[in-house]
Amino acid sequence: MTSSQQPLNQRFARELAQGIAAGAFTAVEATEACLARIAARDGVLKAWVHLDPEAPLAQARALDAGPPRGPLHGVPVGIKDIFDTFDAPTEMGSPIYAGHQPFADSYAVAALRAAGAVILGKTVTAEFAGMHPGPTVNPHDPSRTPGGSSSGSAAAVADFMVPVALGTQTGGSVLRPASFCGIVGFKPQFAAISRAGVKLAAETLDTVGVLARDVDDAAFLFDVLTGQPPGAPAERTAPPVIGFCRTVIWDRAAPETVQALEEARERLVAAGAAVDEVEMPGDFLAVDRDRNVINSVERARTMAHEWHHHREAISDTLAETLTEGLATPHDAYLAALETCRQARGRLPALFGANDALLVPCVPGVAPAGLGSTGDPTFQGFWTALHVPTITLPTHRTADGLPVGIQLVGRPRDDAGLLSVARWALARLKGD
Amino acid sequence: MTSSQQPLNQRFARELAQGIAAGAFTAVEATEACLARIAARDGVLKAWVHLDPEAPLAQARALDAGPPRGPLHGVPVGIKDIFDTFDAPTEMGSPIYAGHQPFADSYAVAALRAAGAVILGKTVTAEFAGMHPGPTVNPHDPSRTPGGSSSGSAAAVADFMVPVALGTQTGGSVLRPASFCGIVGFKPQFAAISRAGVKLAAETLDTVGVLARDVDDAAFLFDVLTGQPPGAPAERTAPPVIGFCRTVIWDRAAPETVQALEEARERLVAAGAAVDEVEMPGDFLAVDRDRNVINSVERARTMAHEWHHHREAISDTLAETLTEGLATPHDAYLAALETCRQARGRLPALFGANDALLVPCVPGVAPAGLGSTGDPTFQGFWTALHVPTITLPTHRTADGLPVGIQLVGRPRDDAGLLSVARWALARLKGD
Repeated sequence: MTSSQQPLNQRFARELAQGIAAGAFTAVEATEACLARIAARDGVLKAWVHLDPEAPLAQARALDAGPPRGPLHGVPVGIKDIFDTFDAPTEMGSPIYAGHQPFADSYAVAALRAAGAVILGKTVTAEFAGMHPGPTVNPHDPSRTPGGSSSGSAAAVADFMVPVALGTQTGGSVLRPASFCGIVGFKPQFAAISRAGVKLAAETLDTVGVLARDVDDAAFLFDVLTGQPPGAPAERTAPPVIGFCRTVIWDRAAPETVQALEEARERLVAAGAAVDEVEMPGDFLAVDRDRNVINSVERARTMAHEWHHHREAISDTLAETLTEGLATPHDAYLAALETCRQARGRLPALFGANDALLVPCVPGVAPAGLGSTGDPTFQGFWTALHVPTITLPTHRTADGLPVGIQLVGRPRDDAGLLSVARWALARLKGD
Repeated sequence: MTSSQQPLNQRFARELAQGIAAGAFTAVEATEACLARIAARDGVLKAWVHLDPEAPLAQARALDAGPPRGPLHGVPVGIKDIFDTFDAPTEMGSPIYAGHQPFADSYAVAALRAAGAVILGKTVTAEFAGMHPGPTVNPHDPSRTPGGSSSGSAAAVADFMVPVALGTQTGGSVLRPASFCGIVGFKPQFAAISRAGVKLAAETLDTVGVLARDVDDAAFLFDVLTGQPPGAPAERTAPPVIGFCRTVIWDRAAPETVQALEEARERLVAAGAAVDEVEMPGDFLAVDRDRNVINSVERARTMAHEWHHHREAISDTLAETLTEGLATPHDAYLAALETCRQARGRLPALFGANDALLVPCVPGVAPAGLGSTGDPTFQGFWTALHVPTITLPTHRTADGLPVGIQLVGRPRDDAGLLSVARWALARLKGD
C-alpha cells in the first residue's frame, strides 16, 4: 500500500502529509511535483479549468513557513469548479459564469484550507454538474470520455496530477468518472458533507464526494470534511458479509461489467467473505424513473435565474432537462419524492444482514467520443436512495480500460462502507 | 375577506393582481402606495435594509407597459436579505457582506419575478438568519422585538408596507416574527421550496417560507413558489379534526399563550371542529435538544469561510453557537440527526386521524427590548420534524400585542394544512 519511493506527485495524500510533517520534503516540493505533472500532461488531458501555479505555490510557501496547520498540511487538492473559492473564479462549466468570482469559499474548500491543504486549482466540471461535457479526456485513452460531471477531478487524480480531489454526485458524477478513469470515487450518505457554497443542481440529490487513488485516502479526505480526526477505515475483525445484487437494471450491463462483478464475487468469496445473492424487488425500478423526475424539476428550479436571463447560453442537453422539469406538475414531483422515500424505507429489508451490496457501477468501460459523459443509471439509482456508495478500481479490459465495481453501504453507514471497501480493495486490486 | 375599498398598500396580494389585471389600477400605483407607506413609517420601523424606490418603480413601469406576465403581475413583494438578488445587494445582516452583490437571483426571487412580481426591496434579517437582531422594531410597540430572523419581512407585511414577503425558518424565523407582528407565517414541509441562492444557515433545517396577512395570500405565494397554478386552499366539505397538543414544552407557555390556545380550542369546537387532546410522549423532548446540536454543527460548517476570514465581524451570539458546533463530534451530530429522523417516523402515530395539531407558537407576546428576537423553542421543535406549520393572527392581549396560535400539518401535507388553516382563521379572526 506504500508508494513512498515514488515521485511526490504519485504519493497518497496521507503520505504527503506524513512526509511534510516529518521534514522529508516540503509543501512547495509536493506542490511543484503536481504542477510539473500538470504542465507535462494537461495539454492533452484538459482536466483543469483554472490553475495559476503561483497561487498554490504561495499557499505552500506560507504553510512551509508556518506551524503545522492540520492533517492535510501541505497536501495539494483539486476542486471541482462548482465549489466556490474566494481566491479563484468558479465557472460551473458554463459561459454564463465565465470569470465569475465568488465572495467566499464553499464549506468544503474552507474545511480543506483549515486542515492545511494547498488548493491547487479548479477542475473541469460538466455544465452545472450535469450531462453536457467539458473538454477533459480520459487519461487511459484520450479519444474517450473521462465520465462526468466531476470529469477534471477524476482525470487529474487518475493521472497523478493531484492525490485527491472534490466532486459532487447528483446522478453518477463521482462514481462514473472514477470508474472510467480507474480510481476510487466515494459518495457518502446524502448530506454528510455540507453543500454550503456549492452551486446546487438538484437539491434533494446533490451529494459532495471525494476522488482518490485508494480507499484510505478517500477516508482521509472524508474525515477532514466531516470534522473527524482522520484515520484509516476500521480494520475488520472478520471478513464482511456482502450481498451480490444485480439490481433491476442488470440488462444495461455490458460484458466487461458482468465479468468484473462475477470475478469480484469469486475472489471475495475466496478471501473469506460471505457473498450471497440479493434479489431486488422489481418495483424498485420506479426509483430510476422518479430520480429523473426529481432531477429535472429540481434543476429547473435551481436554474431559474439562468433560464430567464441567459437561456441562449444553456446547452441543448440541459435545456431539454429544464424544459421537462418546468412541464412537470408539482404533484408529480411530490409523488417522485415519495417513491424514493418509500424505497429508502425498504432498504433495511433489502440489505438484510449484509454489510454492503456489490452492484454494477457503470454499464461498461468509458464510451468512445467526448460528446457524452456516459450513462448515469447504475450510479444515480443509489444516489436517489441516499445511501453511501463507492467505486473501486478493480478491473481493466485487455486493452487497459478501467471498469470499476460499486459497493453500496447500509443507510447512513459511511464508516461501515469504507471499512468493507478497504477490505475488498486490498483483495481485488491489481487485476 | 375583501379589502378592495382600502388603500392599495392595504390590499391582499391577490387583490392587487386582480385589480391590475382588470385595469382598475396599475403596477406603478400599487408600488407607489407601498413606497409611500414605507417612506412614512420606515424611519421608525427599520424593516428595510436595501430599498431604492427607482428600482421597483422601473420594474412596475415595465410590467405596466408589457403583456400579462404571470399570476403576480405588478404585485410588490419583500425579500429577506439572505435571498440572493442579481440587481440589489444581499448583506445577510452581517457587516461581512456589506455591499455584497450576488451574480444571480435565488430561485425564489427568480420565480417571483417570472410570475410578474415587483421586487420592492430587501428586508432586515437577523445576522445570517440566526439570533443576533437587526434594527427592526415591532410595529405594534417599537420598544419590543418584531421577532426574528425574518424580522423585516414580518414587520413590513404587518405594517402594510407590502402584502407578502419571503422568509426562511431554521428554528422559528418565519412563525415567531409573524406571531409577534400579528400576521400569517407559513413554513411548508422541508425542501418544498428550493433553497438555491439562499445563504444556508443549517442545511437540514433551513426552510423557505412566506409571510402574509391571511391564509389565502400565503397559499397564493406558496403556489407560485412551487410552480402550481395559484388558487385559494381547498374549501373543506366538513369541519376539520384537530388535535390539541400541549407538546412536551408546555411549561414555557406564558398565560397569554395558554389563554389563546384554550380559547381557540373552544371556538373551533363551537364552529364544528372535532378537537381532542393529543398527548406527546415525553421522549420527544430529545428533538428540542438535538435540534440545537444539529443547528450548531451545521451552522459551523456553513460559516466555515467567515469563521476563518472574518471572525472579528461575527456577533458574540453567533460565535458561541459556532464554537459549540465546532466542538461537537461528528458522531454526536449523526446521533442528533437520527433522533429527529426517528421522531419523524413516529409522527403518523402522534397525529392519528387528526388533520392538524393545534399547538403553542410562541411563549407569549413579543418580549420588551430589541436585544433578543425571542425564544424559538415552540417553532423550532416542528422545524426539526420537517412538517408544515403555520401561525394565525388570532389573538391580542388587552394592550394590543399579538399572540398567534400554531397549526401543524401532517407530514408532507402542505395543501392539507393550508385548507385547515383557512377554515380556522375564518372562524377565529377578529379576537
